[in-house]
Amino acid sequence: MKYRIEKDTMGEVQVPADKYWGAQTERSRNNFKIGDSGSMPKEIIEGFAYLKKAAAYANHDLGVLPIEKRDAIAAVCDEILEGKLNDQFPLVIWQTGSGTQSNMNVNEVIANRAQVLKGFKIGEGEQFIKANDDVNKSQSSNDTFPTGMHIAAYKMVVETTIPGIENLYATLSVKATEFKDVVKIGRTHLMDATPLTLGQEISGYAAQLAYGLKALKNTLPHLSEIALGGTAVGTGLNTPKGYDVKVAEYIAQFTNHPFVTAENKFEALAAHDAIVESHGALKQLAVSLNKIANDVRMLASGPRSGIGEIHIPENEPGSSIMPGKVNPTQCEALTMVCAQVIGNDVAIAVGGMQGHYELNVFKPVMAANFLQSARLLGDACVSFDEHCAKGIEPNYKRIKELVDNSLMLVTALNTKIGYYKAAEIAQKAHKNGTTLKEEAARLGYVTAEDFDAWVKPEEMV
Amino acid sequence: MKYRIEKDTMGEVQVPADKYWGAQTERSRNNFKIGDSGSMPKEIIEGFAYLKKAAAYANHDLGVLPIEKRDAIAAVCDEILEGKLNDQFPLVIWQTGSGTQSNMNVNEVIANRAQVLKGFKIGEGEQFIKANDDVNKSQSSNDTFPTGMHIAAYKMVVETTIPGIENLYATLSVKATEFKDVVKIGRTHLMDATPLTLGQEISGYAAQLAYGLKALKNTLPHLSEIALGGTAVGTGLNTPKGYDVKVAEYIAQFTNHPFVTAENKFEALAAHDAIVESHGALKQLAVSLNKIANDVRMLASGPRSGIGEIHIPENEPGSSIMPGKVNPTQCEALTMVCAQVIGNDVAIAVGGMQGHYELNVFKPVMAANFLQSARLLGDACVSFDEHCAKGIEPNYKRIKELVDNSLMLVTALNTKIGYYKAAEIAQKAHKNGTTLKEEAARLGYVTAEDFDAWVKPEEMV
Amino acid sequence: MKYRIEKDTMGEVQVPADKYWGAQTERSRNNFKIGDSGSMPKEIIEGFAYLKKAAAYANHDLGVLPIEKRDAIAAVCDEILEGKLNDQFPLVIWQTGSGTQSNMNVNEVIANRAQVLKGFKIGEGEQFIKANDDVNKSQSSNDTFPTGMHIAAYKMVVETTIPGIENLYATLSVKATEFKDVVKIGRTHLMDATPLTLGQEISGYAAQLAYGLKALKNTLPHLSEIALGGTAVGTGLNTPKGYDVKVAEYIAQFTNHPFVTAENKFEALAAHDAIVESHGALKQLAVSLNKIANDVRMLASGPRSGIGEIHIPENEPGSSIMPGKVNPTQCEALTMVCAQVIGNDVAIAVGGMQGHYELNVFKPVMAANFLQSARLLGDACVSFDEHCAKGIEPNYKRIKELVDNSLMLVTALNTKIGYYKAAEIAQKAHKNGTTLKEEAARLGYVTAEDFDAWVKPEEMV
Amino acid sequence: MKYRIEKDTMGEVQVPADKYWGAQTERSRNNFKIGDSGSMPKEIIEGFAYLKKAAAYANHDLGVLPIEKRDAIAAVCDEILEGKLNDQFPLVIWQTGSGTQSNMNVNEVIANRAQVLKGFKIGEGEQFIKANDDVNKSQSSNDTFPTGMHIAAYKMVVETTIPGIENLYATLSVKATEFKDVVKIGRTHLMDATPLTLGQEISGYAAQLAYGLKALKNTLPHLSEIALGGTAVGTGLNTPKGYDVKVAEYIAQFTNHPFVTAENKFEALAAHDAIVESHGALKQLAVSLNKIANDVRMLASGPRSGIGEIHIPENEPGSSIMPGKVNPTQCEALTMVCAQVIGNDVAIAVGGMQGHYELNVFKPVMAANFLQSARLLGDACVSFDEHCAKGIEPNYKRIKELVDNSLMLVTALNTKIGYYKAAEIAQKAHKNGTTLKEEAARLGYVTAEDFDAWVKPEEMV
Repeated sequence: MKYRIEKDTMGEVQVPADKYWGAQTERSRNNFKIGDSGSMPKEIIEGFAYLKKAAAYANHDLGVLPIEKRDAIAAVCDEILEGKLNDQFPLVIWQTGSGTQSNMNVNEVIANRAQVLKGFKIGEGEQFIKANDDVNKSQSSNDTFPTGMHIAAYKMVVETTIPGIENLYATLSVKATEFKDVVKIGRTHLMDATPLTLGQEISGYAAQLAYGLKALKNTLPHLSEIALGGTAVGTGLNTPKGYDVKVAEYIAQFTNHPFVTAENKFEALAAHDAIVESHGALKQLAVSLNKIANDVRMLASGPRSGIGEIHIPENEPGSSIMPGKVNPTQCEALTMVCAQVIGNDVAIAVGGMQGHYELNVFKPVMAANFLQSARLLGDACVSFDEHCAKGIEPNYKRIKELVDNSLMLVTALNTKIGYYKAAEIAQKAHKNGTTLKEEAARLGYVTAEDFDAWVKPEEMV
Repeated sequence: MKYRIEKDTMGEVQVPADKYWGAQTERSRNNFKIGDSGSMPKEIIEGFAYLKKAAAYANHDLGVLPIEKRDAIAAVCDEILEGKLNDQFPLVIWQTGSGTQSNMNVNEVIANRAQVLKGFKIGEGEQFIKANDDVNKSQSSNDTFPTGMHIAAYKMVVETTIPGIENLYATLSVKATEFKDVVKIGRTHLMDATPLTLGQEISGYAAQLAYGLKALKNTLPHLSEIALGGTAVGTGLNTPKGYDVKVAEYIAQFTNHPFVTAENKFEALAAHDAIVESHGALKQLAVSLNKIANDVRMLASGPRSGIGEIHIPENEPGSSIMPGKVNPTQCEALTMVCAQVIGNDVAIAVGGMQGHYELNVFKPVMAANFLQSARLLGDACVSFDEHCAKGIEPNYKRIKELVDNSLMLVTALNTKIGYYKAAEIAQKAHKNGTTLKEEAARLGYVTAEDFDAWVKPEEMV
Repeated sequence: MKYRIEKDTMGEVQVPADKYWGAQTERSRNNFKIGDSGSMPKEIIEGFAYLKKAAAYANHDLGVLPIEKRDAIAAVCDEILEGKLNDQFPLVIWQTGSGTQSNMNVNEVIANRAQVLKGFKIGEGEQFIKANDDVNKSQSSNDTFPTGMHIAAYKMVVETTIPGIENLYATLSVKATEFKDVVKIGRTHLMDATPLTLGQEISGYAAQLAYGLKALKNTLPHLSEIALGGTAVGTGLNTPKGYDVKVAEYIAQFTNHPFVTAENKFEALAAHDAIVESHGALKQLAVSLNKIANDVRMLASGPRSGIGEIHIPENEPGSSIMPGKVNPTQCEALTMVCAQVIGNDVAIAVGGMQGHYELNVFKPVMAANFLQSARLLGDACVSFDEHCAKGIEPNYKRIKELVDNSLMLVTALNTKIGYYKAAEIAQKAHKNGTTLKEEAARLGYVTAEDFDAWVKPEEMV
Repeated sequence: MKYRIEKDTMGEVQVPADKYWGAQTERSRNNFKIGDSGSMPKEIIEGFAYLKKAAAYANHDLGVLPIEKRDAIAAVCDEILEGKLNDQFPLVIWQTGSGTQSNMNVNEVIANRAQVLKGFKIGEGEQFIKANDDVNKSQSSNDTFPTGMHIAAYKMVVETTIPGIENLYATLSVKATEFKDVVKIGRTHLMDATPLTLGQEISGYAAQLAYGLKALKNTLPHLSEIALGGTAVGTGLNTPKGYDVKVAEYIAQFTNHPFVTAENKFEALAAHDAIVESHGALKQLAVSLNKIANDVRMLASGPRSGIGEIHIPENEPGSSIMPGKVNPTQCEALTMVCAQVIGNDVAIAVGGMQGHYELNVFKPVMAANFLQSARLLGDACVSFDEHCAKGIEPNYKRIKELVDNSLMLVTALNTKIGYYKAAEIAQKAHKNGTTLKEEAARLGYVTAEDFDAWVKPEEMV
């Protein structure tokens, strides 16, 4: 491979000749061979592209960056956002905990690419745009990385997670209405209980998602606050006056999301509680979705030896050895995602709790876990919705059979003959394998006519 | 010990003669010898007392319970709330996951105690109040336990957690203002960085708590929704019309908190996402408090070989072997609480995700973990506030010494001579053990006059 | 209340006149009002009693403590172990993270009680036994607390956890043998699969516990190492030569467990990885038990609308509203314990990872979580074993019905006619609601005779 | 793009013409668009390659597969192991929880590639090797996936994790010896304590890793057991006699690791406690490494306002804004890895606890989390070792300064004048900013000569 020489404040470094990155990126690449290369999420790089462009605009507006430099920086940022420079970001999550090296990776790529766009070779002629002095102007890794992290996280939540969950919510709401009169047996403790309708059961799932969405949206204001303007320790050293508000406005404009400057920059650098907070809501959704998906697969279990009250779509052969087997695979993918999100919540807490003084240095691991959770939940809900939830249909025959046969219909008698006599009827029927009606009559507690009048599943829901 | 015979639908049980509880409580006592007896939180029992009284009132208003029974039930509930019957609730957390046995414990104690208040011995004469038919009227364990859980959780959060944290927040806010001009060295990556004021540093802590309080309050509406009226599976079977709204009104009146009936009773029985949601905010606060307490102990470390920038109160001898040692014990208690809360969050998630069909049967473990976290966080913040935060004072001498000596003041030169030359100055000073000013002059980059004019810690904050 | 004056190095403190504890205990009581008083686990206090006695013996043997003092200290330790002084330990978990205050609580109680046993009033005459200089001789909180923690943890594991799990393992092994010929349908993905025997199914549960017990026992050597002799920072300052080995021998002798002195005292104070390690095995067991208990309740579900392949004991009325209902309550208690243990594992990790320099100051929270997990797992297994597992019986009728009806018996044809044709048979039978045999014949793939010869559930296990 | 038609038991599917995979892979690709494509770890695919080859050999030996088929299958497996077919495995972690689709992906690729190696086009002529009947012979996804998972996990642990940690352990051991006489101040509760040597301090770190390695190795026997031979539900249906033992032997031979057939196949399919168990040890190591890395960065903190007792290598410029800043970046990468591993442990527990009946369907998420943890820990230890630990050097000047100045040297006087008088000396010196010696003399407790004779840091270690 061909190399060129790049320099930073520590000296010279050999860099692959065909790459735009510079000395610090290369140092990081060599010093952090941990896991697969390039693991820093691309959404973070995009977040950087937005903020570097916004910073260039704000710096220009405030008189500290010439327009040619602003436009040169912005042009490369746009290329990054278009995905044209995807192979220029080789760094890993497991680098310095401030993400300084990814910040410098972006700074270096922008500076060198700008040089090339101006018609020079990298390293040729005077450096038109300087990585630290121009691209990073009025910035520090300590405020850029958390800003990039919030941009990436916010976008993922509102563009992927929320729409995905809303899709599923919509389907469940439709099903809740559609099946509102399908009376079925209820189950508590996994045991037969009094009846409800399939629509009511599904309405509970929909309600869980509605609460979860509300909880997630409650966290967005904190997540929309960005650290940019705090620079090294939150004081805003080396920024022009008014910069923090202005740069946030540009970010809002470029991303089309309501980002604002953080009220307290010290908090915004030293703690990432906004990430903890929003991920708490993602975890809540994982808890909800695990319950829902689990119920769906239990209700659909069978075909002959399970519960079998609903049908779900048959999407693939289920077994490499058992011919004709079909499985609730979408439920499985979704519950695996839930397990991941619940684990990620702990990784994020462990990172979030260990900030020291003016800086939390668990930024990349927190960002990566957050983005994974938000992406997976959104994607998995779309997949589950499309390939499972939309196809849920009642197995009317099975549902009727089970509800008619249920001993817990006896509960309707409580208000007529009291809990104790009702229990006696149920116990006898269970023991003798008979019907409630038979035993009610035999015990002399309820006549057959009264029984029929009082015990109507369809009136118990 | 003397016993009497009690009966339930499964037959006779020997019960200690001097206790009010009945057959089902006794069965549970014998069947669940897991951990110490009586571990079911007393706040849950109190929650039950509120709701049993409210149910009696609602049942009476709606014509299904005579006024004498209402008043008899209410009288015992009041005794429970006054703590007069504390030794009547021997059951453990680790019982049936619906908390049915604690519901029956309350039902039985109320019924038998009412009999005694009426002038009878337990078991003597006709049972005036029946545990299932009267005390439990229009109720099921499945809606009472989650209601008791929400009452207990809500009360703990608003009566203990929030006030405790607000106390600490107030103190930190005062300190942030008080020390707003105390310029000190900043630290990022635990390494010397540009300066900030001690007030700014502490303002970051206060901001964390402000966000956490807001996040916690965001969860209260969900927590204020109660399941009562859903009975066995959420359909409200065996409740009179209008009961759910009315009973919630009575609970709101008796507790003086804004409880309302849950919009969707199926969700309220089958999932406890409100507990997951609110505890997520408690976990966020634990993450914040761990950072704050950790910073405080590091800043106070020493007395001679640590950071030593602040003094904290000396409350106790710190060592049984090292004479004269004083330790940051309040920080330790608080961070231990944080560890507990972060663990409890996982226990709650694991319970919350495993609901099946119409019922989640991890209610007691979720409730117990929630109440422990909420209580400990509130108490620990009060303790930390009183015995540590209020006494934080700057060590002015040490602070000045360190800031004056710092190499990172060089950052102020970036905008004057560029990042690279500034780095050269800092590196030389570090290597030679000299001052920035000396090296700046020696390298010819900055005159001594300019240096003094440009590098002023008090203007860098 | 009456008080007396006690003194420590910080000055005078009022102490309740009827208590043996002294100034430092009282300071802690006042400074740490966090959660209920007296929450420090009693097993830790007992651990201290063992080690204080052992230290007195070792100190005497090595010539630094007179025999009268040794015996006076030992006498009070014996009283503590007999439970006679239970009301003398009012401190909480949420104190200093080294447990210094509980160490001093024990030191003070021993010193004052010894004074009384000698015939004096507390505070009267010269102090015969001094808390720091005699009871705490050759010790520091930093090595006593972890020693007490290991004693308590080891004893709980070998005296409660392991026997409890072994009981359940034994029952499951018996059931595995007893039901080794009960052919039933298997289920994968919750869907019907090829058959196995009920004994085989249960043998999997037993195997899980066997692995878990092995894993737990693998951790005991680390847990048997005790820190005593390291004193303040691990160097053993102020201990006589040979003390660490000797004191461990005495602890081994007094407890009848194979405790040894830790190889590296620095590790033993600064990290509690032995607690992390052993609790990892407890968590593994929780994971196993959750699976087992969950299977049992699903297999027992019904009575008419569930799986219903096994019967489990009916221990209590299951519902306060649904007469005659019986629930798998032991499964619920056990799975709630599992949720707690899985949460506790995180609390312990969070504590364990945050040691600083020569000391980990999350000792009490780690110890408390460990002891809770170990106790609950042991107790819950005994309870589950006694009240559930021992009573598991097959529902032969139901089992046979389901296996005979299963479509997955078709798998036996794979090796005869290939996977594709077998799938076609199963799909047709599923679609038409017919039997495999009918469809096999209709499609002309297998004759009725061959089918009967090839498809025998009892030969597929 | 060009397509060809592939078939499975559900019908026809369009597959990219240039890919070897078949219908079921393509269905999975379309049905599970969750996260980035191809996320199923490549180590799992390699595990499959080993086991498919081993199965072909065992099947041939036992007379159920002709030698030509064996060799054809083996040839493709070898290509997979050589990395020649890396672009043929597009499936994601978030698929069916049994990993059936990845098993079929491998089966299909082998079958089609074998056809091509035989000189045909895919789909041309008779299928020489059938995916289900030949490649998957004597197998099920339910036993192959866990086998592939164990192969991958075991290999990663012994080839990456353990060597990486052993490297770091070796370095720390060397440093412990090298610095065994460097007397420094100890710190407990982050506060000054009695002295120890830097070598002793580091020996504690080494001991942590030694215990962790032992704990990890303790788990290997369970992890070396493989499920293969259990087929669909653990009974071994459709396998020739002796197959399970023989196939394990081949796997051992091909991988050069001591794999054996699992004792209980029901456990091996329905539970993945071996993964839980080994990951528990990885988590323990994460807990240890977090402590170690944290200590290193605190000890190295400064350069002028921190602890500064050790130097660590300066690898990169530390800040994009603060010139000359150097940070403990390897500590940060390592502690971020620790956070991830601690989170992954929860994801694995959540997956492991939710097996149902004969199958756990959280296999892919458990495998992926395990492999990530094992890889990251190994890699991060190598990186930390190479770029940080090896370069640790004492800052002798600073160390001496701090130890000489310490008030806790007073502890040496305990055995001479008692704890109380010693405390008085320390308190006075602290208050007056004087030395212990001065105060000892002034109070008349110790003469200057005795002080010098008794208080020698180098004799306190």
